[in-house]
Amino acid sequence: MLVFENDYSFGAHPKVLEELCKTNMAAASGYGSDGFTASAMEKIRKAIDCPDAQICFLTGGTQTNQVVIDCLLKPYEGVISCVTGHVNGHEAGAIEHSGHKVLALPHHEGKLRAEDIRQYIDGFYGEEAFEHMVFPGMVYISHPTEYGTLYSKQELEELRAVCDQYHIPLYMDGARLAYGLMSERTDVTLQDIARLTDVFYIGGTKCGALCGEALVFTKRNMPDHFLARIKQKGALLAKGRLNAVQFDALFTDNLYEEVGAHAIRMAALLKKAFADKGYPFHMDSPTNQQFVILTDEQMQRIAHHAVFSRWEKLPDGRTVVRFATSWATTKEDIRALSEIL
Amino acid sequence: MLVFENDYSFGAHPKVLEELCKTNMAAASGYGSDGFTASAMEKIRKAIDCPDAQICFLTGGTQTNQVVIDCLLKPYEGVISCVTGHVNGHEAGAIEHSGHKVLALPHHEGKLRAEDIRQYIDGFYGEEAFEHMVFPGMVYISHPTEYGTLYSKQELEELRAVCDQYHIPLYMDGARLAYGLMSERTDVTLQDIARLTDVFYIGGTKCGALCGEALVFTKRNMPDHFLARIKQKGALLAKGRLNAVQFDALFTDNLYEEVGAHAIRMAALLKKAFADKGYPFHMDSPTNQQFVILTDEQMQRIAHHAVFSRWEKLPDGRTVVRFATSWATTKEDIRALSEIL
Amino acid sequence: MLVFENDYSFGAHPKVLEELCKTNMAAASGYGSDGFTASAMEKIRKAIDCPDAQICFLTGGTQTNQVVIDCLLKPYEGVISCVTGHVNGHEAGAIEHSGHKVLALPHHEGKLRAEDIRQYIDGFYGEEAFEHMVFPGMVYISHPTEYGTLYSKQELEELRAVCDQYHIPLYMDGARLAYGLMSERTDVTLQDIARLTDVFYIGGTKCGALCGEALVFTKRNMPDHFLARIKQKGALLAKGRLNAVQFDALFTDNLYEEVGAHAIRMAALLKKAFADKGYPFHMDSPTNQQFVILTDEQMQRIAHHAVFSRWEKLPDGRTVVRFATSWATTKEDIRALSEIL
Amino acid sequence: MLVFENDYSFGAHPKVLEELCKTNMAAASGYGSDGFTASAMEKIRKAIDCPDAQICFLTGGTQTNQVVIDCLLKPYEGVISCVTGHVNGHEAGAIEHSGHKVLALPHHEGKLRAEDIRQYIDGFYGEEAFEHMVFPGMVYISHPTEYGTLYSKQELEELRAVCDQYHIPLYMDGARLAYGLMSERTDVTLQDIARLTDVFYIGGTKCGALCGEALVFTKRNMPDHFLARIKQKGALLAKGRLNAVQFDALFTDNLYEEVGAHAIRMAALLKKAFADKGYPFHMDSPTNQQFVILTDEQMQRIAHHAVFSRWEKLPDGRTVVRFATSWATTKEDIRALSEIL
Repeated sequence: MLVFENDYSFGAHPKVLEELCKTNMAAASGYGSDGFTASAMEKIRKAIDCPDAQICFLTGGTQTNQVVIDCLLKPYEGVISCVTGHVNGHEAGAIEHSGHKVLALPHHEGKLRAEDIRQYIDGFYGEEAFEHMVFPGMVYISHPTEYGTLYSKQELEELRAVCDQYHIPLYMDGARLAYGLMSERTDVTLQDIARLTDVFYIGGTKCGALCGEALVFTKRNMPDHFLARIKQKGALLAKGRLNAVQFDALFTDNLYEEVGAHAIRMAALLKKAFADKGYPFHMDSPTNQQFVILTDEQMQRIAHHAVFSRWEKLPDGRTVVRFATSWATTKEDIRALSEIL
Repeated sequence: MLVFENDYSFGAHPKVLEELCKTNMAAASGYGSDGFTASAMEKIRKAIDCPDAQICFLTGGTQTNQVVIDCLLKPYEGVISCVTGHVNGHEAGAIEHSGHKVLALPHHEGKLRAEDIRQYIDGFYGEEAFEHMVFPGMVYISHPTEYGTLYSKQELEELRAVCDQYHIPLYMDGARLAYGLMSERTDVTLQDIARLTDVFYIGGTKCGALCGEALVFTKRNMPDHFLARIKQKGALLAKGRLNAVQFDALFTDNLYEEVGAHAIRMAALLKKAFADKGYPFHMDSPTNQQFVILTDEQMQRIAHHAVFSRWEKLPDGRTVVRFATSWATTKEDIRALSEIL
Repeated sequence: MLVFENDYSFGAHPKVLEELCKTNMAAASGYGSDGFTASAMEKIRKAIDCPDAQICFLTGGTQTNQVVIDCLLKPYEGVISCVTGHVNGHEAGAIEHSGHKVLALPHHEGKLRAEDIRQYIDGFYGEEAFEHMVFPGMVYISHPTEYGTLYSKQELEELRAVCDQYHIPLYMDGARLAYGLMSERTDVTLQDIARLTDVFYIGGTKCGALCGEALVFTKRNMPDHFLARIKQKGALLAKGRLNAVQFDALFTDNLYEEVGAHAIRMAALLKKAFADKGYPFHMDSPTNQQFVILTDEQMQRIAHHAVFSRWEKLPDGRTVVRFATSWATTKEDIRALSEIL
Repeated sequence: MLVFENDYSFGAHPKVLEELCKTNMAAASGYGSDGFTASAMEKIRKAIDCPDAQICFLTGGTQTNQVVIDCLLKPYEGVISCVTGHVNGHEAGAIEHSGHKVLALPHHEGKLRAEDIRQYIDGFYGEEAFEHMVFPGMVYISHPTEYGTLYSKQELEELRAVCDQYHIPLYMDGARLAYGLMSERTDVTLQDIARLTDVFYIGGTKCGALCGEALVFTKRNMPDHFLARIKQKGALLAKGRLNAVQFDALFTDNLYEEVGAHAIRMAALLKKAFADKGYPFHMDSPTNQQFVILTDEQMQRIAHHAVFSRWEKLPDGRTVVRFATSWATTKEDIRALSEIL
């Protein structure tokens, strides 16, 4: 069976696993106070060109979103996200569970527009009774988005400007950041992201690690006693080394870029395979997630040979499905898929 | 200055105040275990024709909404409301503060449609990954709505049917219920409401009391140890008599109806006053809140003589404003307003 | 039946009720933006000799404790209270419900000792792993305490010193403050309290009002957007006038002092009545709550004629009971009780 | 440097790591719906002799405690723990953060006594105003305890009886369960634990895994939509295989027992080494944590050669320190330590 279900179907990238094996018998103290953690942090600081960055390793994406948003928002504030944002629809209400409203604005191919935010916040403060409403306290974006699309540098600068205007932080969910960085159609670098956001995370789980996300505060803005808050949310690993060693590997010899670049190349081949056979796309994604529109007949036929994800039903009865590539996808996989199509 | 700012600008209806005075020196035990509470409950049970109803007096509307929604929802559930619902926009995030998402659906003149709910819930359970989403666990409606509009009996029955289909409770916010019940354009009675909802509240604060809302569970469905939960939320009054005595008065000799009927009569006169002068209305409200569209010039002129609320700015620069009547509004008030117009 | 059950058995002090009646037909805008609120605040600021005080009226004691503690603590902090503190045992877990641990220290006749606090906090910061523990973030005291006892000015100054040392606020729950201020055995004034605490509340519900507590921030330390936070907790009254008018009355012509002084006089008579008959006391209370030890036989006999509260069972089978006086207690009540004894 | 700091200083037991390597390139669907998870669950069900057990893999101990306690308690309930319980003191308030009070009872060598619980609950329901208090809703124990001590089967049966009497669940935190099971001084088996508790977890992180705890509901009592609740708390791993593969290894060929037995053997040698040199023990621990009392001079000397944890300062100035063994401790480590002593 060919596996395109998602980018977390396999274990760890072999080099990540190798590092876990190599370091296994070295002693390390707990809760992130170890040398592996220090080393991984230093490599990330260099990669993002932000020597002052404060970094913390967490275990998963929803956990990271919940921790960041709850810790940076004041209790009377909500987070602005586009309606398709992961925090708005696919985290089982984790944000509301921690007491905050997601203020959902329209999406444009999965992206939030600076102008929509400006209009929303202006409208908010234009209300007589705004103290009876939820204050907009932060902007959440994902990059790549839930539809695989990417912000341009220009768009990020506009988001930065609107956040500066209202003095609220800009947070980027980089669960799939490797694929965004290595897309052929991006002008956004890791350094740009560190410069333009207040906080972002570099996804590990979906980019070659067994688990782990590297949360980066770029403006000396890590909340007070952040360790205590992470502990309080059940998000502190005793063996902090687990996440750290993996990120140390991912940020050695450009492995993180390699993981992204490989998946992007495979996605390009996959895209071509579908396009060559005349399959329509739901959205023009420049990253490792490709959204194809299938008839029921096509869907059933392909499902005999390949695993993929059903995304949404279209009004005409066809279905949007997602094919995802990763470090583990091979040319043979694509070739075999191509034959099925 | 003429006061049409809202329906809670004055103290209590004189008969309510009189009852507070009359009972002042009678001893009563605390926290709702007193005779006034028992008496008021019994009168409400009769008025709604639901001998089994479980009743509890709370102090304000947002508090009541927060208590009901948090206590009836399971932690992984959210509440369906139309986007204009009070819980969605004007309670400073009280619902999210208690851990639950408001699942906002479109409004139709301030009302939620059964068909929209059905489609939403079907869509939810149609998702492969619905356990990663917020479960729809309750339907919230306000009656009258935030725009003064009313559900018909037919519409309530449709909402009931959709709630039965998915086994979720129907909750009605009756902050201004007196005005809904006494509208000339309603076919919904208090008994219908008790029959068709699982839980609702009879508004006191905006219908002649100094404070107080009577929360009614109609299907023997009051949550376990509800007193403890109210206490835990800081919503339990030591002098439970305060709310009870007021509701006892409101449900004696049809005072609650009288309060509503008077305001409705005044609203009809007010509406006529505006209509006679050719002022356009934003929505055709059959209750005590009237939404009129004013130019800046009109707004400024009227503001010299009368207090009203600014609602929203229209794209053409004009403003929707609200004039509200209450038990305290007099014919003289309307006449004076008419002259200003 | 004689009523000594508690100090909230009757309605409002007649002068409070009179003020509610007198102001009933005056229009007031909502949510505390009215003139009654401004007037009551000003009178309180004068009474406490703290022209900068920021004041807010809430409805009940548990609500006030929950709002203050949750709003002043950081999420990783808990509140220090003695084990007998109201927040620790009798608020159905309201503090934990808002996310904070009550750090319970031993009590000394219902009081917290500065030295115990110092030792606790020193111990906390002496731990290697204190970031895995709950940070001590605030000191909570009640005055009078749950046992009717009072802090001396010296004791309050010591508490102030320990709070200054660790930079944490001192909060006083004054649910029964009138009785504390007017006790013959106190050297603490309202001005002392304003000076020595960071925040405190002046109890209304148990001191002559139908409801209401005046929350006072004495050091320009009211939390940001406090109105929004109160709203979010369901604690904001639409008719803010209700609490304000009552406090306006209580702080006119020394009514608050009169309420306290009368109850204290009645408590002295009551104490004498018990003492004269040789009844033992559980604690030597200088305020309006008197804790007497009764045998079962005595308890049953008195219960035929008077209502009082059972407090705790002693190991020897006898019971500690509480007799409370208030503005509504009369000399005749005491005389009648005396005859029963 | 010799490492006795804790039982999570090293990576994974070599056989656990080997299994991660072996399975790395097998595809697995996400969120625990994979074959590794099914296999690990089945092996655990057999090991605990509870074919109906419902199992879920989580990542860490505090997370597991928070999830279980919040999901099993009703909102008005608290959890009974002894004062030294991990949830009471060392989880940064994770339980209170999720809204529940820890009801702390005295400890007896780190253990909770059935009789203390009975007395506490009887006292609770004996109160007139118990609805103003936090309901006791669950019993939490750790086994081994925070002091390395163990419950006997008799003691667990007594705890079971008191939980049955009051219809509340018994929850065992088995962070270090392997060491408890393999102690030479225990009569408690894994099957006993499954039979006598309602829910417990089998610790992985501190017993040979890189991360992971196996949460077991033994009475068909897993909460509704538990996956959604775990997701909502940020505790759901995308690569559920990570925890599952490790537990699959731990429950193959008795590896979990081997991990425990080895550490116990090493602890016995370590204990002997200290005893031979006349060092006093703080508590007589039958498991892998040994609590020794050191003078400052001894502490400094040993610290030059070995890492251990400082536990608490004694009034006489000496310090209780903890030496922990694990699967990674060798006889050479002990011999070298012995020479230092």
